[in-house]
Amino acid sequence: MKPVDARALLEGPLSIVHLGLDDVVHGAEAAGVEVARVDFQPPAGGDPGRMRLLSELRNWSSTIDRANKTALERFLGSQPNLVGVGVAREVIPEMADDLFLHAGPPIGWADMSGPLRGAVVGGLLLEGKARDPGEAEKLAASGAVRFEPCHLHQAVGPMAGLITPSMPVWIVEDRGGERQGRRTFCTLNEGLGKVLRYGAFAPEVIERLRFMADVLGPALGEALELRGPVDLKLLMAQALQMGDEGHNRNRAGTSLLFRELAPALVRTGREPSQIARVLEFVHANDHFFLNLSMPMAKCMLMAAEGVPYASMLSVMARNGTEFGIQVSSMPGRWFTGPARQVDGLYFPGYTASDANPDIGDSAIMETAGIGGFAMAAAPAIVQFVGGTAEDALETSRRMGQITVGTNPVWAIPALGFAGAPTGIDLRVVQESSLLPAINTGIAHKDPGVGQVGAGLTAPPWECFHLALEAFVEHCRSQCSDQK
Amino acid sequence: MKPVDARALLEGPLSIVHLGLDDVVHGAEAAGVEVARVDFQPPAGGDPGRMRLLSELRNWSSTIDRANKTALERFLGSQPNLVGVGVAREVIPEMADDLFLHAGPPIGWADMSGPLRGAVVGGLLLEGKARDPGEAEKLAASGAVRFEPCHLHQAVGPMAGLITPSMPVWIVEDRGGERQGRRTFCTLNEGLGKVLRYGAFAPEVIERLRFMADVLGPALGEALELRGPVDLKLLMAQALQMGDEGHNRNRAGTSLLFRELAPALVRTGREPSQIARVLEFVHANDHFFLNLSMPMAKCMLMAAEGVPYASMLSVMARNGTEFGIQVSSMPGRWFTGPARQVDGLYFPGYTASDANPDIGDSAIMETAGIGGFAMAAAPAIVQFVGGTAEDALETSRRMGQITVGTNPVWAIPALGFAGAPTGIDLRVVQESSLLPAINTGIAHKDPGVGQVGAGLTAPPWECFHLALEAFVEHCRSQCSDQK
Repeated sequence: MKPVDARALLEGPLSIVHLGLDDVVHGAEAAGVEVARVDFQPPAGGDPGRMRLLSELRNWSSTIDRANKTALERFLGSQPNLVGVGVAREVIPEMADDLFLHAGPPIGWADMSGPLRGAVVGGLLLEGKARDPGEAEKLAASGAVRFEPCHLHQAVGPMAGLITPSMPVWIVEDRGGERQGRRTFCTLNEGLGKVLRYGAFAPEVIERLRFMADVLGPALGEALELRGPVDLKLLMAQALQMGDEGHNRNRAGTSLLFRELAPALVRTGREPSQIARVLEFVHANDHFFLNLSMPMAKCMLMAAEGVPYASMLSVMARNGTEFGIQVSSMPGRWFTGPARQVDGLYFPGYTASDANPDIGDSAIMETAGIGGFAMAAAPAIVQFVGGTAEDALETSRRMGQITVGTNPVWAIPALGFAGAPTGIDLRVVQESSLLPAINTGIAHKDPGVGQVGAGLTAPPWECFHLALEAFVEHCRSQCSDQK
Repeated sequence: MKPVDARALLEGPLSIVHLGLDDVVHGAEAAGVEVARVDFQPPAGGDPGRMRLLSELRNWSSTIDRANKTALERFLGSQPNLVGVGVAREVIPEMADDLFLHAGPPIGWADMSGPLRGAVVGGLLLEGKARDPGEAEKLAASGAVRFEPCHLHQAVGPMAGLITPSMPVWIVEDRGGERQGRRTFCTLNEGLGKVLRYGAFAPEVIERLRFMADVLGPALGEALELRGPVDLKLLMAQALQMGDEGHNRNRAGTSLLFRELAPALVRTGREPSQIARVLEFVHANDHFFLNLSMPMAKCMLMAAEGVPYASMLSVMARNGTEFGIQVSSMPGRWFTGPARQVDGLYFPGYTASDANPDIGDSAIMETAGIGGFAMAAAPAIVQFVGGTAEDALETSRRMGQITVGTNPVWAIPALGFAGAPTGIDLRVVQESSLLPAINTGIAHKDPGVGQVGAGLTAPPWECFHLALEAFVEHCRSQCSDQK
C-alpha cells in the first residue's frame, strides 16, 4: 500500500467511512459531512465477559470442531421416514389424559400469550373438558391440565403447537444412523385462516379438528399402512429443487406428498366421498407438508443430540412469550430470552400492533438448515416482502457463516447446487454477532383470532448468552472429568 | 479513446483477439501466438442474398414490429383451459378412420424415420388394422392409411406424435382473446421407456394404449366434467416457479395437475381399484403434464396466427426426418430443413450412433417461450448434461435476444422474476445468426426400440432461409395489396 498524504484527504469534500460507536460521528454529520456506516459487530457484541468466555473456548477449539462434525454427521446419517398416523395419547411417550403439549420452552398458563391461551381453550373444548371458552379459561387457570413442551415428548408443533390427547399425529421414525427406531411426532396441519395453532377456537375450528381426528388422521394412517414408509429426506430434497424453502413455502412438498399418498388412500376401501374430502382438504392447504417436515427435522436433530463438546444447536423453539434454544452437548436444557416481534406482511385489516411475538416449534426447520437458511431455494418468499432473488441468495450465504457445514442431500439450485448451510454453531453466532434468520407466520396477540400475516424474525440474544455460559461450563466439566 | 502507439503493441509477447474467418489466424497460431476467438456470426451467416433480403425488410421495420406486437398480444391474451377428454375420431376436426396424424411437417411412409415408422406399426396394431408388425409395415406402405401432420388438425404430439382414430385426447379450449372457443388436442402421455411415441410397439405398449383408451381417458374425462375447466396458463406459471422448464422437466406441472384432478376422480363413482390405477399411472410419470402443456402452447400460438407482416414463429415441429417451422403471417405454410442430431446424454447401453434425428411436435414449447427458452427456471436440466446454474441463466438470456417480448404471466424466479422470452422473430434469428435452443428427448433410430436419451438441439438453418425468402415475398405482396 502507498503511504497516504494526510493533507490530500482534506483538499476535496470530506466524507467519512465509519465503523464503531455511532456517537463519534454525530458531530461530523451535523456539520454536513457525508458518513457511510459500515455494518460491523465486534465479537460477542463487544461484551468483555462473553469475549473472555469465547477466548476460553479456544482451549477446546479442535475438540469442539470434532464434536460438531460428529453431531452433523449423525444429523446427516438420520433417515426420517413417515411410518404412520396415531392418536397422541396412544403413541407419544409419556402422554397423559391431563397433559397438553405446547410449542417452545416450558410455560404456565399465567405467562402464556394470547394465541397459546386461545389454543388451550380450543383444546379443552375439543377434549370435552369445557363447554364454553369461559369455562375453559377457568379450567386452564385451575391447574386441571398440565402443560409441557412438545420437545420434551419427541414432538413438535407449528405456532401454538398444541397437542391434546385425542389429536391424530404423524409418526416419523429414524430408519438409519445410531438412533434407529427413534420416533418423532407432530399434529396434522389444519389449513389456513382461523385455526387452532394461531389461537382460534370458534366452533368451525373445533369441528375441523373433529373431522381431522375422525376421518383425516385414520384415513391417512390406513393409506400409509398400505403404501409403506415415505422417505421424508428425499421428498424434502425434491421440494428444495422446486421452489420450497420448507418453512413459509411448502407447495412442492405438499404436492409431492399428495402424489405419494393419494393412490393408497383410494385403495383403503373407505367411502369415495370420504376419500375425496380428505384429498380436497390436503389440496386446499399448501402448508400441509410443514407438519411433516417439522418432525422430520426434529428426528434428524435428535440424532445429533448428546455429543459432548458439540456447540451445534439441536432446538430453536418459541412459546409466544419466550424463545428457547438447546445445544447438542447439553440435551434437554433450555436457554431462553423474550420472543421478538416478526418483521412481516399483514393480511388486510391487520397491522404490527395486532401481532403476537414470535411463536411455534417451526424454527426447528432453520435449526435443520431449511427455512431462512434455504432462502435461496425460494426467492418468491423474499419477493413477497419486497426483496429480490439476490437478497434470497444473500440470506443463505450469510447463514453459511454461522453453520457447521452443509447438507449435500438438500442441494439448492440457485447456489450452484451447494448443500443447505446446516448446524448452527453457538460459538460462531457469538463470535460473528450474526443471528439465525427465521421465516415464520404471525399470530394475532389476542386469543381466538388467528393468523394475521407472515414474515421474518430472529432469536433474542439472551438465549445465546445463557447458552454460551452453560456451554463453557460444560466444556470445563468435560475437561476435568477426563483428567 | 487514446490513440494506440503501434510500436508498443509489438514490445510485449504477441496475442491476437480474432473475429472473422478462421483461416486468417492459422499462420499466427502455428507460430505460437495466442489467439482468442470471438464468437461472432455476421448477419444472415454472411450470405449476400439473405443480407439483401434482410435489408429489404428494413423498409417495413415498424410495420413488422407492430405486427409482431399484435401477434404477441394475441398469444398473451389466449386463455387455454383444459376442458375435457375425447376420442380422436370424434373430436379432432376432419379426423377420419383411415387417417393417422404424426408430428412435424408432412411426410409419407417412404421418408419416415425409424421411430415414426415404429409408431405407425404400433398404431395399426392398436387399431386392429394389422395382426403383426410385418403385416402393419406392408399395410402402411400400401397407402391403406393416410398420413397428415397433427398441426393440420389443431393437434400436437410429442416425439412420433402419432394420433390414431381411437386414441383418447386432451381437449384444450381458448377461453379468452379473439379466438375464443378454438380447441387444440393432444394424446395422453404414455410414460417412460418402451412407449409408442418413441417408436416402440411391443405387446406391452399396445396393452398400455388399450388401458389408456378404455380406462385412463374416460376416467380423467369424467373427473374434468365434475371439476370443471383447468386454467393451464396459471398451472404453467406455478410450474415455472417450481423448477420446471416445461419441456424436459415437468415434475411440478404433473404434481399440480395431479392435485387438481385426484379429488374429482374419486368422486366419479368409478371402481376404487380403477381410480387407484389411474392415479398410480399419472404418479409414475413426471412427464404426464407435457401432453397438456403442448396443446396449451398450440392454443396460444394459434391465437397469434394470421397477423399480416408478423415475422413471429407460430410453429416449430419435427417428423424425425425434417424440421419445419411456420410463421404467424403465413399460417399453414411449412418451411423445412433436415432434422439435426440431438446433443444429449444416453441411457446405459446406448450411444449417439443409436439416435434418430430430432423428432416431435414438442418444440411447440420453445415456440411459446418455454423449454429451452425458460432454461433459467430449471438449472437441474443443465446440471444433468454437465452445465451450471449460470449456463441455464445464460441460455434464457440468449433466447431473449431473438424474441419479440416476454410473458409476464410466466415469470422466472432466477431471472429476477422477469417473464420468459417469448415469440421467436424470424428476422432477428437471421440478423443475429442465433438459433432457438430446444430441449428434447432422443428416440432410437430403429422402429420398435424406444427412448435412448435426452438432450439439447436446434433447428436446421434451411427452414429459416426458406421462411425468410417467403416472408419477404409476403411483405412485398401485402405492400402492393395496400397500394
